[in-house]
Amino acid sequence: MADMRAVAGGILVTFGICPALAADDAALLTEAQEIFRPLPNGMATTGTPLITERVELGRLLFFDPRMTADGNVSCATCHQPSLYGTDGLAKSIGVRQRPHPRNAPSVLNAALNFVNHWRVDRESVEDQAEQALTAPISSGQPDERAVVDRLERIQGYARLFEAAFPGERNQMTAKNIAVAIGAYERSLITPSALDAYLLGDQNALSRSARAGLRKFIDIGCSTCHRGVGVGGGMYQKFGVVEDYSAVTGSLSIDKGRAEVTKDPADLYVFRVASLRNVEMTAPYFHDGSVATLPEAVRIMARVQLGVTLNDADTSEIVAFLNALTGQLPAEFATVPVLPPAGVGARTN
Amino acid sequence: MADMRAVAGGILVTFGICPALAADDAALLTEAQEIFRPLPNGMATTGTPLITERVELGRLLFFDPRMTADGNVSCATCHQPSLYGTDGLAKSIGVRQRPHPRNAPSVLNAALNFVNHWRVDRESVEDQAEQALTAPISSGQPDERAVVDRLERIQGYARLFEAAFPGERNQMTAKNIAVAIGAYERSLITPSALDAYLLGDQNALSRSARAGLRKFIDIGCSTCHRGVGVGGGMYQKFGVVEDYSAVTGSLSIDKGRAEVTKDPADLYVFRVASLRNVEMTAPYFHDGSVATLPEAVRIMARVQLGVTLNDADTSEIVAFLNALTGQLPAEFATVPVLPPAGVGARTN
Repeated sequence: MADMRAVAGGILVTFGICPALAADDAALLTEAQEIFRPLPNGMATTGTPLITERVELGRLLFFDPRMTADGNVSCATCHQPSLYGTDGLAKSIGVRQRPHPRNAPSVLNAALNFVNHWRVDRESVEDQAEQALTAPISSGQPDERAVVDRLERIQGYARLFEAAFPGERNQMTAKNIAVAIGAYERSLITPSALDAYLLGDQNALSRSARAGLRKFIDIGCSTCHRGVGVGGGMYQKFGVVEDYSAVTGSLSIDKGRAEVTKDPADLYVFRVASLRNVEMTAPYFHDGSVATLPEAVRIMARVQLGVTLNDADTSEIVAFLNALTGQLPAEFATVPVLPPAGVGARTN
Repeated sequence: MADMRAVAGGILVTFGICPALAADDAALLTEAQEIFRPLPNGMATTGTPLITERVELGRLLFFDPRMTADGNVSCATCHQPSLYGTDGLAKSIGVRQRPHPRNAPSVLNAALNFVNHWRVDRESVEDQAEQALTAPISSGQPDERAVVDRLERIQGYARLFEAAFPGERNQMTAKNIAVAIGAYERSLITPSALDAYLLGDQNALSRSARAGLRKFIDIGCSTCHRGVGVGGGMYQKFGVVEDYSAVTGSLSIDKGRAEVTKDPADLYVFRVASLRNVEMTAPYFHDGSVATLPEAVRIMARVQLGVTLNDADTSEIVAFLNALTGQLPAEFATVPVLPPAGVGARTN
């Protein structure tokens, strides 16, 4: 029997907690603490201390569209604060309307992924940022010099780079741009109800979220979606039990990591997605082929685990997933004022 | 002699304010109060009261890219908070990389312009928003129905429209989208040092800013750049004394309002730009042909007034213009969390 109180005729009657259920709840918490980890308190660092000036410079650069070919695409174009660090598109759109091959993963908590991008071909958020600076779709700039040239033309950045990289001789480099953006991204951490729960507060998860967590573990979701990111920590084939594309309705088949490694064993292998804030980041999967979270949950159970979920199971698992939504960090929701200057395509 | 204090040998000596200069300062303030008006305290309304729910809905819609053809252009694409409601480009880039014909004016204080757009073919911020919803460059949507369809597919908006337009039968219409966005834009007001000055605080403007104001009036800038927006209140030909294009280096010649009215008298006629926050909104002019504010000031003096400004004159006028920079409104700098849902081009 659940912990419940009833006011009857002015008399407060308290029912006790059923001992068997309380033991189940305690066991669930212990199990969850073995599978998941709470988010770090503060920044996701790799040992190097992050100075405030570097994080703040990274924040400016993240929101600055003037480094890219036409001056109209920034990191925040595909990773919008309003959409929890995504863009709401099946696949993102880059400079000059060039299509990105995959769905934009959220930048929130991305620093905690063991590697980045769907095909795990980015080592870290810094590596991702540095490659994006001259990537044909994200940036369209021919080389790093062209990127740095743009920043040199914006009065105000020189001083900020000096403060962010004290003692260095050439501060305004592509490498440092990426290090600063990475430092900023390491600050974008979103603690949620799950974290409070993992720290010992059982009531941080509702009863249905706890039932969903039980199912999430029991049917095997947590085999891959585990650790601090509830995912983001390993590779896995999409479509273990049956081909994904017939179920997702994908218009084209993505070979996944096999295209990077040229190893047939990596066919349809992707990085397991972190499920943090998944409620806020539709559409789903590497190709954004599925519109809603309940549908995505059913498909994953089916093609990865061979499990058919009924409506009640699905909505409990969704209740658990909704407990992974954290608040937008203030330094992401509030955008910075950029040093003013017009740069980019001259089309007057 | 200026109001100054010197500490000499521990003795504080205060020089008095020269009476003639004090009289000049008082006269300048009186003159300025006749030419300009301080910003309204709060919202720029047109009589209709603005309910909070409508302003907040407009804020969501302003930042939502999912209404446009490919789902990747919002009002905030050309009117970015980080760049003071502009995009830093000579001319903006719309959906599918379509080029806008003119430079994006800031959305800050735009509700106070007597009409909107460079060619004054938008009656109000609401009219601008409504036309933009289906404009081929801003939106690319074929009709209003297509815009509303997108919003209907995002769970969460229906409730917000009900709250914003209580008692109406069909709340989710293109008209109401525009009314809500307009209501939000009417809240984007940026009081500055000039406003404090106009309200009687002479020291709100530095001595050089006041010298710049004196020149701004004396050489004739304030003939057109006047009123609450320091501009934004009338039409004027660009290039009264000599053709603008030879001086700005414009790559193409914009005929201005003549293209709208078909009247040869309107050749090269544009809406006079509001100079509020002009420090933060490079590049300058209807075609973004000029990169810096000092250069823009010199050009305007030359082609509009036949005046050649020296460096000292120019920097004093720039000091005055810098006093027109206000703080970013919190409801603009802090972006809202949008109701989650993936919509737009299906490209999976």
